Amino acid sequence: MTRAIDLNSDLGEGYGAWKMGDDAAMLGIVSSANVACGFHAGDPLTILATLREAASRGVAIGAHVAYPDRVGFGRRPMDVASAELTADVIYQIGALQGLCTAAGTRVTYVKPHGALYNTIAQDTRQAAAVIEGIKAIDPTLVMMGLAGAPILAQAREAGLATVAEAFADRAYTPAGTLVSRREAGAVLHDPELIAARMLRLAREGVIEAVDGSPLHLSADSICVHGDSPGAVAISARIREALIAGGVAIRPFAGAQA
Amino acid sequence: MTRAIDLNSDLGEGYGAWKMGDDAAMLGIVSSANVACGFHAGDPLTILATLREAASRGVAIGAHVAYPDRVGFGRRPMDVASAELTADVIYQIGALQGLCTAAGTRVTYVKPHGALYNTIAQDTRQAAAVIEGIKAIDPTLVMMGLAGAPILAQAREAGLATVAEAFADRAYTPAGTLVSRREAGAVLHDPELIAARMLRLAREGVIEAVDGSPLHLSADSICVHGDSPGAVAISARIREALIAGGVAIRPFAGAQA
Amino acid sequence: MTRAIDLNSDLGEGYGAWKMGDDAAMLGIVSSANVACGFHAGDPLTILATLREAASRGVAIGAHVAYPDRVGFGRRPMDVASAELTADVIYQIGALQGLCTAAGTRVTYVKPHGALYNTIAQDTRQAAAVIEGIKAIDPTLVMMGLAGAPILAQAREAGLATVAEAFADRAYTPAGTLVSRREAGAVLHDPELIAARMLRLAREGVIEAVDGSPLHLSADSICVHGDSPGAVAISARIREALIAGGVAIRPFAGAQA
Amino acid sequence: MTRAIDLNSDLGEGYGAWKMGDDAAMLGIVSSANVACGFHAGDPLTILATLREAASRGVAIGAHVAYPDRVGFGRRPMDVASAELTADVIYQIGALQGLCTAAGTRVTYVKPHGALYNTIAQDTRQAAAVIEGIKAIDPTLVMMGLAGAPILAQAREAGLATVAEAFADRAYTPAGTLVSRREAGAVLHDPELIAARMLRLAREGVIEAVDGSPLHLSADSICVHGDSPGAVAISARIREALIAGGVAIRPFAGAQA
Repeated sequence: MTRAIDLNSDLGEGYGAWKMGDDAAMLGIVSSANVACGFHAGDPLTILATLREAASRGVAIGAHVAYPDRVGFGRRPMDVASAELTADVIYQIGALQGLCTAAGTRVTYVKPHGALYNTIAQDTRQAAAVIEGIKAIDPTLVMMGLAGAPILAQAREAGLATVAEAFADRAYTPAGTLVSRREAGAVLHDPELIAARMLRLAREGVIEAVDGSPLHLSADSICVHGDSPGAVAISARIREALIAGGVAIRPFAGAQA
Repeated sequence: MTRAIDLNSDLGEGYGAWKMGDDAAMLGIVSSANVACGFHAGDPLTILATLREAASRGVAIGAHVAYPDRVGFGRRPMDVASAELTADVIYQIGALQGLCTAAGTRVTYVKPHGALYNTIAQDTRQAAAVIEGIKAIDPTLVMMGLAGAPILAQAREAGLATVAEAFADRAYTPAGTLVSRREAGAVLHDPELIAARMLRLAREGVIEAVDGSPLHLSADSICVHGDSPGAVAISARIREALIAGGVAIRPFAGAQA
Repeated sequence: MTRAIDLNSDLGEGYGAWKMGDDAAMLGIVSSANVACGFHAGDPLTILATLREAASRGVAIGAHVAYPDRVGFGRRPMDVASAELTADVIYQIGALQGLCTAAGTRVTYVKPHGALYNTIAQDTRQAAAVIEGIKAIDPTLVMMGLAGAPILAQAREAGLATVAEAFADRAYTPAGTLVSRREAGAVLHDPELIAARMLRLAREGVIEAVDGSPLHLSADSICVHGDSPGAVAISARIREALIAGGVAIRPFAGAQA
Repeated sequence: MTRAIDLNSDLGEGYGAWKMGDDAAMLGIVSSANVACGFHAGDPLTILATLREAASRGVAIGAHVAYPDRVGFGRRPMDVASAELTADVIYQIGALQGLCTAAGTRVTYVKPHGALYNTIAQDTRQAAAVIEGIKAIDPTLVMMGLAGAPILAQAREAGLATVAEAFADRAYTPAGTLVSRREAGAVLHDPELIAARMLRLAREGVIEAVDGSPLHLSADSICVHGDSPGAVAISARIREALIAGGVAIRPFAGAQA
């Protein structure tokens, strides 16, 4: 039996003349691309170019839906009414679907971005609004969320398939939550350490928590970054270590046609 | 044999707290709604509400694609590069398709808005970019344009079906073009006169030009307005006169499922 | 001795082709205009037209600064970092100052709008960021806030002059806070009742709370609305009643040159 | 007598999470900063940081006003009505003035950006609208434009002081206009060649045209770029060559307090 895991990254986040990250490099590393939909980042032409490159490489496409906050890059919590949030989600997925059609690919999952991702991990009202938007446009879309977060159970109860992700460069508490960025050691920087942790996660379903205890974590996807040269190098190292360790990298099952 | 014609109007043009026109009233009058896609007007929730109402009344949906110029309401000519314009068109149609799916309807045609409508009537480069965008997302979409404008032939040569529209409240030159708004008499205001002109157009394919000569005009749709109480009243009068004159009002053939 | 009070209203809130309220009518009623600065509403030309009309009528100008959320009309709470909020406030006041110079008037006070107004009534961090922005561009600007709200004391401690306002159409608790809009009776609609309440407030410094008890409220300005024909009529009635009752309507002292 | 010239560059062109160019490096090279005002680029906090750094280094500040086209980076010609353009210019200059006050500096000149710069070099209607905006907010502001362009004469006739600039990396026709970017050799890339040309320009008022003939060009400022590491290196080389050649680098006279 071949072990396999998905690698996902946020892509298509340029905006007009402004660039963000190295999409071309990352599309040679990941199996799933969370593609910006224009609300926090991504103009139509930038998105389309990313989708075409992703399609040519067989990388799966997720809608990286966000709050309508471009100057804040979707990172600022907003208290958006449910009906507005639902419509915003539909609009963004639809726009990305249209661009996918033009690029010869399709949207298979949805991963909320930034502050929306964090908010719906706690806020069941906003979570329900996002779920309703996904179901209204395509109930076969898979919802990607943080392994262990209540949003995944909420989405499944609402009838959506889900996929759980782990963060390659983040420390975990023994309870399986992310160590807050306000605490020292929350973000890991050593490529070898990160790669070894992800290989163990992929093979054993275990990651070492900050207190040294083994944490069982069920994740079908690993989130990696490409927004700096260092981040790309770490992502490449993870891919290399996984493959060398006998773990295939491919889109999570739910995203396969 | 029953004569029939389509009535179309620009709808869904509110934006957040700002309203524009009386969509509910117009959806009782027209058979086709040119719905804003968010670039010149229309936030997702406003658009969705308009689509739901249109769906419940059997009104066909067109994508009212525009330049990305909200503060200018898409009325200002812009020199947009072809690749950008194509991607912008795909994005807007896709977003509207997504909202249509949620509303239980679908996009059947595309009518460029404002300055884009006027520009592509002359500028074959921008016209080609718009046509390419439509074909890339759905080559069965019908392109709506001004009766007699070169854009319609260009679209047909590119493989799109087209539908020609006449403007209810505009004066025509003997050559079949619109009298410039800079000239006196370019815009008609008398509801009875307008209604009589449209009835003649629907029954005989003739409209009286500014010099009094009969102009043969082949139009399958009539554009009416709803952005003021007076405009709604004129639109209602046109509908009434057409029906009283034995002309059915229904979506143009190309838009029917 | 002549009693006097200020009447203020939110103006300049159109955006491009979209209108909001009847600025011309309201500028004949109020003595102070809270003018949108472009973040929640107001394009430069709309703002400039409002400022010119205000200048010609001797109406004082306040900067109606807001969160950068046009589609949400600045009504959605946002968690904005302090440095960003401070810079946003400076930018908005500066833009309005520039337009005021062109219109022959000047900004004399600042009234945060919508969600920002409500948030800083509670959130001392965001309140401090707003105050810092005001001080950085012009420490002689007066901060307008809800009578009794902690923000006014915080602003004074930081060295700003302040002015307290009452809401004409809102019910008050015996503690001097506004009755929540979620409760019945929170918003008053009877023009005569509202006018009588405001006359008593202006003459005696007393308003009747929801339990019938007299509430002492120290307010130098009354906020009235102009976003519907009914609201304009109520505002006009308040003005009429105040003048008939011997209360002059003029900009609050702090705003006078 | 000491020869002196001004070096100017476009700065403050990041937007939220997106960076553009190396402002810190360029502020060690230039004597004048054309700072984005938020319409084509520049969020308030990014602008403020650039202004603070410029103030600390004694770099003069110009308002880099633009069309309202962020996704197009202000590079797309737009047909904006005069009253709108005038108000847009006032708004942008006012916003920058406000941020300058907070940063302890002030706006001394205006340099239109991108498509607006190019358009008003030809379009006297739009040029007049820009000039009117400048005069309405501060008639002592200096208008910066292309050496030889009609806009400079138009601005002087309207009562504005002007300053002419040359482009360091552009080839010139014998007639003194820029060689079109569509032609080979329009943009120069050799740092030594560019530096030598600018030194000759500063000392002799002469630049070699594409046909090898000497072109007399009266320019008080040289425009350099910082939007790539290569561009920064060229700019640094120009500065070095000018100083080594006995030419002081300082803000043009009109910009001095």
